[in-house]
Amino acid sequence: MLQKIDAGITYPKGFKAKGVKCGIKNLKKEDIAIIKSEKRAVAAALFTTNKMKAAPVIVSESAMENPQISAIIVNSGCANACTGEAGLRDAMNMAAITAEVLDIRYSDVLVASTGVIGVNLPMEKIYSGIEEAALNLDNESDESVLRAIMTTDTFPKQSSYEFVIDGKEVRISGIAKGSGMICPNMATMLCFITTDVNISPEMLKKALNDATNLSFNMITVDGDTSTNDMVCVLANGESGNKVIDTEDSEGYKIFARALNNVCIDLAKLIIIDGEGATKFLEITVKGAKDFKEAKQAAMSIAKSPLVKTAFFGEDPNWGRIVCAAGYAEVDLDADKISLTIGELPIVIDGQKSEQSLSEDFQKNLKEIMAQKEIVLSLDLAAGQAEATVWTCDFSYDYVKINGEYTT
Amino acid sequence: MLQKIDAGITYPKGFKAKGVKCGIKNLKKEDIAIIKSEKRAVAAALFTTNKMKAAPVIVSESAMENPQISAIIVNSGCANACTGEAGLRDAMNMAAITAEVLDIRYSDVLVASTGVIGVNLPMEKIYSGIEEAALNLDNESDESVLRAIMTTDTFPKQSSYEFVIDGKEVRISGIAKGSGMICPNMATMLCFITTDVNISPEMLKKALNDATNLSFNMITVDGDTSTNDMVCVLANGESGNKVIDTEDSEGYKIFARALNNVCIDLAKLIIIDGEGATKFLEITVKGAKDFKEAKQAAMSIAKSPLVKTAFFGEDPNWGRIVCAAGYAEVDLDADKISLTIGELPIVIDGQKSEQSLSEDFQKNLKEIMAQKEIVLSLDLAAGQAEATVWTCDFSYDYVKINGEYTT
Repeated sequence: MLQKIDAGITYPKGFKAKGVKCGIKNLKKEDIAIIKSEKRAVAAALFTTNKMKAAPVIVSESAMENPQISAIIVNSGCANACTGEAGLRDAMNMAAITAEVLDIRYSDVLVASTGVIGVNLPMEKIYSGIEEAALNLDNESDESVLRAIMTTDTFPKQSSYEFVIDGKEVRISGIAKGSGMICPNMATMLCFITTDVNISPEMLKKALNDATNLSFNMITVDGDTSTNDMVCVLANGESGNKVIDTEDSEGYKIFARALNNVCIDLAKLIIIDGEGATKFLEITVKGAKDFKEAKQAAMSIAKSPLVKTAFFGEDPNWGRIVCAAGYAEVDLDADKISLTIGELPIVIDGQKSEQSLSEDFQKNLKEIMAQKEIVLSLDLAAGQAEATVWTCDFSYDYVKINGEYTT
Repeated sequence: MLQKIDAGITYPKGFKAKGVKCGIKNLKKEDIAIIKSEKRAVAAALFTTNKMKAAPVIVSESAMENPQISAIIVNSGCANACTGEAGLRDAMNMAAITAEVLDIRYSDVLVASTGVIGVNLPMEKIYSGIEEAALNLDNESDESVLRAIMTTDTFPKQSSYEFVIDGKEVRISGIAKGSGMICPNMATMLCFITTDVNISPEMLKKALNDATNLSFNMITVDGDTSTNDMVCVLANGESGNKVIDTEDSEGYKIFARALNNVCIDLAKLIIIDGEGATKFLEITVKGAKDFKEAKQAAMSIAKSPLVKTAFFGEDPNWGRIVCAAGYAEVDLDADKISLTIGELPIVIDGQKSEQSLSEDFQKNLKEIMAQKEIVLSLDLAAGQAEATVWTCDFSYDYVKINGEYTT
């Protein structure tokens, strides 16, 4: 019933957007964008849990006190984080100027920034960028918006679906940026989602929380949690479905599934584009005491630099995987744990499986390790809960990209 | 009063040792060693907190139920971890054979192993190695022991001191191995310390706990905590001082300081030899609510791959440092934190300092970043406590070494 569509951020009815070049770092690509709903939209948003919150996060959190939003202003190339009072003033001015040129309320604007920390925004450039974007809003420039939010991303990330509620065609579309500094606890990246569904603020908030917990909170590139990140969704009701205001409704279920899909698609794209990544790893931990411990063990494996470098080297060093589960501080039965890579049983009852000694097995394992996408499953033998997280390997290029970021 | 001495593990009176080549992986270097006290020594030991405990750890923990130890048998090249019941039998046999050839009790032997996980020990080679080492124990082969415990270490690590208690000359000497998989919570590496001090088991245990908390528990290379690690100290009383049995005694204070020095020296050497490390980073967090939070914030910075790669690139990307403190889940005042690199005030009151804009400052900063040893200090402005941790950068070589370890 959910149909995946190849379309961008203005695919849902009643949205316009534009990304332009204002030269924050240089003029090579778009670096500032506006996403606008023709009428005020119901909004839900989640923000970084980092205590060093960037100025735009503070401004947007305050805007979300009333969950009605008309526009998002976002820039790349400068995070406006650790910029003190001047930074906060700049973020407020971004919202104010955007509100002015779009003739909307100040408190109906979300502000987002991404890029280098500790540098102040070049506000003259920002102002002219906002004006140019505002004057040129349309629904044919989705790619300019995608480019405007990219930093070290190597490809743009979007996901769109179409579905029917009450006989009305409903659309949802999300875009995201982020490849380094990706970690769970939501503090992960920028993600903007537009939809023309008609939904109450409470239900939109619940749907976003649930979707985030199964997507952006289940990924890690390097364990770092940034100062700037946010996920937000604007729902303008233009599809004309009867308002979704209970969890039990059919409409909620369909919408929640669509939002889930968008978020998981984008989360996986972020991992595929992990800085320097050559492998996409799906790590499932089963047999855990509860979901929290399952996730904790899976994240411990996903964050281990020893595991990540082993996969880069296509080295099935399973000892590092069970070792990472061992220090995750979760219940496990060391003599009963089992591990599969691909479908191959590597570890059974806490030790190397007999099958794994055969030449055929080793040949198959080598083929699996050579693939770009690899699936691991570890059974802790301590309960019934499971969780799946996604991560990537650590390569020479990760070191290169991050050793040379500002210089 | 403490005199640093260039000497090895048999420098304290009444110890002999030997490392030999038994060919666990190949015959290129020594891979098995015995350290022996002529008479039963009082012992204290700390073991990995990883739940996937290696077999030798299980055997040694059991030996420590009575803190009298005569010998340590250690091998490199194979960790005997995740090896099931057979592995446990092998570790017990290592102790049994060592006890037999040395004519001591089974429960007076500590067993330690390091190397690849999930592979069983080649026991015939181990037996012949034990016999050869036992027959050739002396106090002129300290370097053979150092080589026998090395894995990816690029240089041997030892530290010795001499001091006086009750007019008696007392000696202490420690050796360590470990460069990857180094993380706090003690689960860090192998460290064997010998001393001829006369001390009670209780006081020795307290001194080792305290020293470990300020040394091995304050370092991290990659955040991974291994299955095998242990720190142990044997005190045989041969120096003839009056037994140290209270914390308040002058003797305890001198000995504790000496043990502290040995442990901090070895911890720092492990970091300097961090896999692929090009920089040694000393990170102090001040102004924390308590020691626990100070350490937590310092470790969050020390473990951040983004921080570690920035230092590799000699890039003073201070935003990543405050960002890592921001997600450490500790109290901090975002508008009051300050950061120095070297002695240079980079961040004051939560933002880039004015001084840092000058050309001279930038030139000095560049020089500091180019040094091999770099000191950071972050003030959280939330209390009075402080903690210092040591770590290294992440380089191309870290990825190379760990991507190609077993293959």
